[in-house]
Amino acid sequence: MANLNGATSDLRETFLVVYSVLKSELLNDPAFEWTDGSRQWVERMLDYNVPGGKLNRGLSVIDSYKLLKEGKGLTEDEVILASALGWCIEWLQAYFLVLDDIMDNSHTRRGQPCWYRVPKVGMIAINDGIILRNHIPRILKKHFRGKPYYVDLLDLFNEVEFQTASGQMIDLITTIEGEKDLSKYSLPLHRRIVQYKTAYYSFYLPVACALLMAGENLEKHTTVKDVLIDMGIYFQVQDDYLDCFGEPEKIGKIGTDIEDFKCSWLVVKALELCNDEQKKILFEHYGKENSADVAKIKALYNEINLEGVFAEFESKSYEKITGSIEAHPSKAVQAVLKSFLGKIYKRQK
Amino acid sequence: MANLNGATSDLRETFLVVYSVLKSELLNDPAFEWTDGSRQWVERMLDYNVPGGKLNRGLSVIDSYKLLKEGKGLTEDEVILASALGWCIEWLQAYFLVLDDIMDNSHTRRGQPCWYRVPKVGMIAINDGIILRNHIPRILKKHFRGKPYYVDLLDLFNEVEFQTASGQMIDLITTIEGEKDLSKYSLPLHRRIVQYKTAYYSFYLPVACALLMAGENLEKHTTVKDVLIDMGIYFQVQDDYLDCFGEPEKIGKIGTDIEDFKCSWLVVKALELCNDEQKKILFEHYGKENSADVAKIKALYNEINLEGVFAEFESKSYEKITGSIEAHPSKAVQAVLKSFLGKIYKRQK
Repeated sequence: MANLNGATSDLRETFLVVYSVLKSELLNDPAFEWTDGSRQWVERMLDYNVPGGKLNRGLSVIDSYKLLKEGKGLTEDEVILASALGWCIEWLQAYFLVLDDIMDNSHTRRGQPCWYRVPKVGMIAINDGIILRNHIPRILKKHFRGKPYYVDLLDLFNEVEFQTASGQMIDLITTIEGEKDLSKYSLPLHRRIVQYKTAYYSFYLPVACALLMAGENLEKHTTVKDVLIDMGIYFQVQDDYLDCFGEPEKIGKIGTDIEDFKCSWLVVKALELCNDEQKKILFEHYGKENSADVAKIKALYNEINLEGVFAEFESKSYEKITGSIEAHPSKAVQAVLKSFLGKIYKRQK
Repeated sequence: MANLNGATSDLRETFLVVYSVLKSELLNDPAFEWTDGSRQWVERMLDYNVPGGKLNRGLSVIDSYKLLKEGKGLTEDEVILASALGWCIEWLQAYFLVLDDIMDNSHTRRGQPCWYRVPKVGMIAINDGIILRNHIPRILKKHFRGKPYYVDLLDLFNEVEFQTASGQMIDLITTIEGEKDLSKYSLPLHRRIVQYKTAYYSFYLPVACALLMAGENLEKHTTVKDVLIDMGIYFQVQDDYLDCFGEPEKIGKIGTDIEDFKCSWLVVKALELCNDEQKKILFEHYGKENSADVAKIKALYNEINLEGVFAEFESKSYEKITGSIEAHPSKAVQAVLKSFLGKIYKRQK
């Protein structure tokens, strides 16, 4: 997730110290009789897959909790607990990425080979994904068992994981190889995929963790959830936009959504706005490797002024989200939501 | 798991009715916005992977709970709850099998192609495995949220899944392709693999579920756990024995542990009992496809009388397990453990 990062570098350092604490706890988990080989395998697997990202999701748990405490400084214990929850989200992310890369037959991730492509790993990466996923309840039990909100944490992570896997499922079954069919793509389908596959675990989960730590009842915060889901959808639409119109130097990659026949916001918008001849071009050239085909699609995107359509969407989303935030009774909660929005509004990377 | 089945056919029918109830609840889970396509996909995936086994683990939850209630008949609600827990174990099993078959590059499972080999499924099977795993907390939340033992159920399933994945890990990393090295195999390693990969979820988990439903505190039942783990290990040793010495018509398959270089109880025992020339034969011929190599290994097994060594192990295990059972203060718990032991002692399939 690009540039959702408002954390100061010292906070990041503390966060990484907690990683090494959690790692050594997991590598000495008494629920398993470790062999030297298995301990070394898991340590290498964790260091390869968990801490290498931008850590925005994890760090935002600590940021959000601080804002909910309205500037009252956090105790060391609170920092450790908020960091542990943040790391649970990073572990969840690592678990999804390790398995998604196998399903997508990807080659690189975070500038290194995908874990399953590392020599001697191969399909063992599937079990490593399961291990990563299983570390989350181990961390929660060690640090939160006995807290009044322990069971709510378990329910939260279970529900969000279920929603993410369900979003991934509709994405996978709508793009089954050999069945590339643009007519399946639509705005409601796109919204469903990004809401479930990305928004819940990237935007709602960090804030929900902070709210539980602050003693809040999540059932009383459905509006917070709705706003964060809207932000997550807006964020993913930006991602789709930048994949085509962003500067590769800034976003750090060359987008290939057109070649990959992705259900991108751009193509579903185009399908909505195109006349019949333009539709023909989309159906003929979308999802082809050839750069001439890609050029035809990009020319069409310009013809129908998708950049302008996106700018319109961006300001409308901003207004809608800001309105919902300011309608919220709690200033502290408003601050949490505004900090998320501030990090993503009009981002270039 | 062969022949652990003491359930009457009407109980099996009730159990299957509960399956269809759970399935329709899952296919209408309000935590996700279903599309027709995703609902059809999940229903097909569940029917293909969940109910097709012997259902021994699932049914044994109901059997065990009945015995704990000492013949007081169960209410309809109790039958549904015990069945739901039984199905959670069957879901857990399906999740492991779907993913294990991909990791082992297997071809068939329960007499049909492995799920990932079904046309248009392929690597989507990885996400389907995740979906199966995510169904367990969905079932638990729907039927047990609010029960005093709800959090203990979540902890139990989380811990047992972690132990199973950890056992699978040592199995996978000790048999990495291209590193076939018999000297890594030993009795302690074999015990670790079978204890963690099989015994916890196949033997301990069903009884632990029944104990929680009966209001018991699992921390007060460590001896029950130990006995069930010993039974699970004994059961897996029988499995290894029958793979080589069992009658294919009875066990329903032709064993290939020798060809597959499996860390079987037979080969680790052989390594323990062999003299140096015999060891040479093991190292030279174990793990080869060629039937001449397999024959040499089987001849060696007979030379050192492994059948007799197994018979000795079997009676010793039986005595030890019976002794621990009879030392248990509760007659009801004794009945549960004896019924498990009775189902596996001297089994031929």
